[in-house]
Amino acid sequence: MNVPTLADIQAAAQRIGPYAQRTPVLVSSSLNAMFGVQAFFKCENFQKVGAFKFRGACNAIQSLSLAQAAKGIATHSSGNHAAAVSLAAQQRGVAAFIVMPRNAPEVKKAAVAGYGGQIVFCEPTLEARETTLQEVVARTGATFIHAYNDVRVIAGQGTATLELLEDVPDLDIVMAPVGGGGLLSGTAIAASGMAPGIRIIAAEPERADDAYRSMNAGHIIPSVHPDTIADGLLTSLGDLTFAIIQDRVEQIVTVSEEAIVAAMRHIWERMKIVIEPSAAVVPGALLEKKLDLSGQRVGVILSGGNVDLDRLPWATH
Amino acid sequence: MNVPTLADIQAAAQRIGPYAQRTPVLVSSSLNAMFGVQAFFKCENFQKVGAFKFRGACNAIQSLSLAQAAKGIATHSSGNHAAAVSLAAQQRGVAAFIVMPRNAPEVKKAAVAGYGGQIVFCEPTLEARETTLQEVVARTGATFIHAYNDVRVIAGQGTATLELLEDVPDLDIVMAPVGGGGLLSGTAIAASGMAPGIRIIAAEPERADDAYRSMNAGHIIPSVHPDTIADGLLTSLGDLTFAIIQDRVEQIVTVSEEAIVAAMRHIWERMKIVIEPSAAVVPGALLEKKLDLSGQRVGVILSGGNVDLDRLPWATH
Repeated sequence: MNVPTLADIQAAAQRIGPYAQRTPVLVSSSLNAMFGVQAFFKCENFQKVGAFKFRGACNAIQSLSLAQAAKGIATHSSGNHAAAVSLAAQQRGVAAFIVMPRNAPEVKKAAVAGYGGQIVFCEPTLEARETTLQEVVARTGATFIHAYNDVRVIAGQGTATLELLEDVPDLDIVMAPVGGGGLLSGTAIAASGMAPGIRIIAAEPERADDAYRSMNAGHIIPSVHPDTIADGLLTSLGDLTFAIIQDRVEQIVTVSEEAIVAAMRHIWERMKIVIEPSAAVVPGALLEKKLDLSGQRVGVILSGGNVDLDRLPWATH
Repeated sequence: MNVPTLADIQAAAQRIGPYAQRTPVLVSSSLNAMFGVQAFFKCENFQKVGAFKFRGACNAIQSLSLAQAAKGIATHSSGNHAAAVSLAAQQRGVAAFIVMPRNAPEVKKAAVAGYGGQIVFCEPTLEARETTLQEVVARTGATFIHAYNDVRVIAGQGTATLELLEDVPDLDIVMAPVGGGGLLSGTAIAASGMAPGIRIIAAEPERADDAYRSMNAGHIIPSVHPDTIADGLLTSLGDLTFAIIQDRVEQIVTVSEEAIVAAMRHIWERMKIVIEPSAAVVPGALLEKKLDLSGQRVGVILSGGNVDLDRLPWATH
């Protein structure tokens, strides 16, 4: 299996440098007191399109040959990946075909269209999504860019940790949330490559714990009816991300819905930044203190900040 | 009248350096497109206690003589100033006596108590507040630190603009909200001192437009029953802040409640940062485009980020 290397991540950082934000690393003494660690938050909520996903999409699209670029790219997603590939494609001037279920939220359709993505609607089933994508690729010759099980995407996601460790070299631990595993894989390769001996720990919602169960079982157990507020983490691992995670991630800790929401609110209130529920899973793990990390220097990837301000989880209506 | 100078602000910057955050300056291409300007946002929502008020409080308290410090400080406030002086006093190890109305929100009492401030309750009237403060000062010998009509406080508030212009020297305009005028006065002195010719423009809620009317009248017109969501801007100008503002501020533009709320939401959504309504008044002015600033490089002081997440202005309950 072709696994990306630290050199691939370094090349990705060069490639996306002109297009991506170098996001800040923030700290909070009150959250440190609450969590009992020294936390360094890598703020991918400030990334283009509001999520780390832009890094992988941009790296993949900037990596295309001219012949590939001429035919455009295709993907299926109704989340941050869809917006990310649309913007990255627009920046390079290539067509982006985004397969989305008909019933996707209007706000997500609008985001993709706003970045110039061409939406191809499909029925809201896994099968229709795959079939429609294959039709689009057959018709256009576009290059498929998977949301996470893709070497170029994983290398791009790893650039967040590259920057984090450039800014804060002496971390004991780096933590990322896990859904499909693209961010976690890139994080693990970057961290183990740059800082041998660093501990790599993931966090996952209890109610979407397929990665946790897959790690324990030693083979991929697909997600079945995941039901969590962390809607960026509903997907199952791919063969590539599973192999990388098995190899390099020490542990996956599961987090309750209550802790995710509480941690999200603490981050908003104490740090004055907007993060989405998926980004609050690692802070939720720190809040629940299932792991003894006391006094450790912990890098935390805050994965994104796209929330519907009309539907906040603590709203009393 | 003893008006602070640029040198006073530079001295304040030295004095508060070890205690205050050097807050970042953020930009947003989508907000620039929306507002039609190049905006540079000085993020005082990331300041200690979540507001610029910490700068003035810290400068005033660090300026006290040892004899003064031994007797503590006193103020009346139930807002950000109360929290700011409490923390600044705690940092120097001096007592802080905070006069607050009995009916102040519990969250504000808790914030002051959390920073070690000693709350002295009074009846919820202007007269009781003044009388109680005088009693506290007479009993303790504490030094009164007014929230804005104070040379040391104004000099401290000016350090935000000092940093802004160090980071972005070539601004055409600097904008701040105006309530009592401490922030605006410090902003005006710092900006005119560092960048002669720079335009200094303020924004004020239409429904608390006493500074606007005072400027037009040429004398202080106190605020009467102000009723705005921007609850940090309810106070009237003092003689010191009025003199500075009359002398150095080109214009005060008034902003509708609708624009304040809309701009606040745009900032949360696009920049992924939490700002309070009072901090959204300048962005609201840019959104309403009452002034033709198109293409100008505009520094915007985002004054604070303390909001009740259970009572957001766009909540539908």
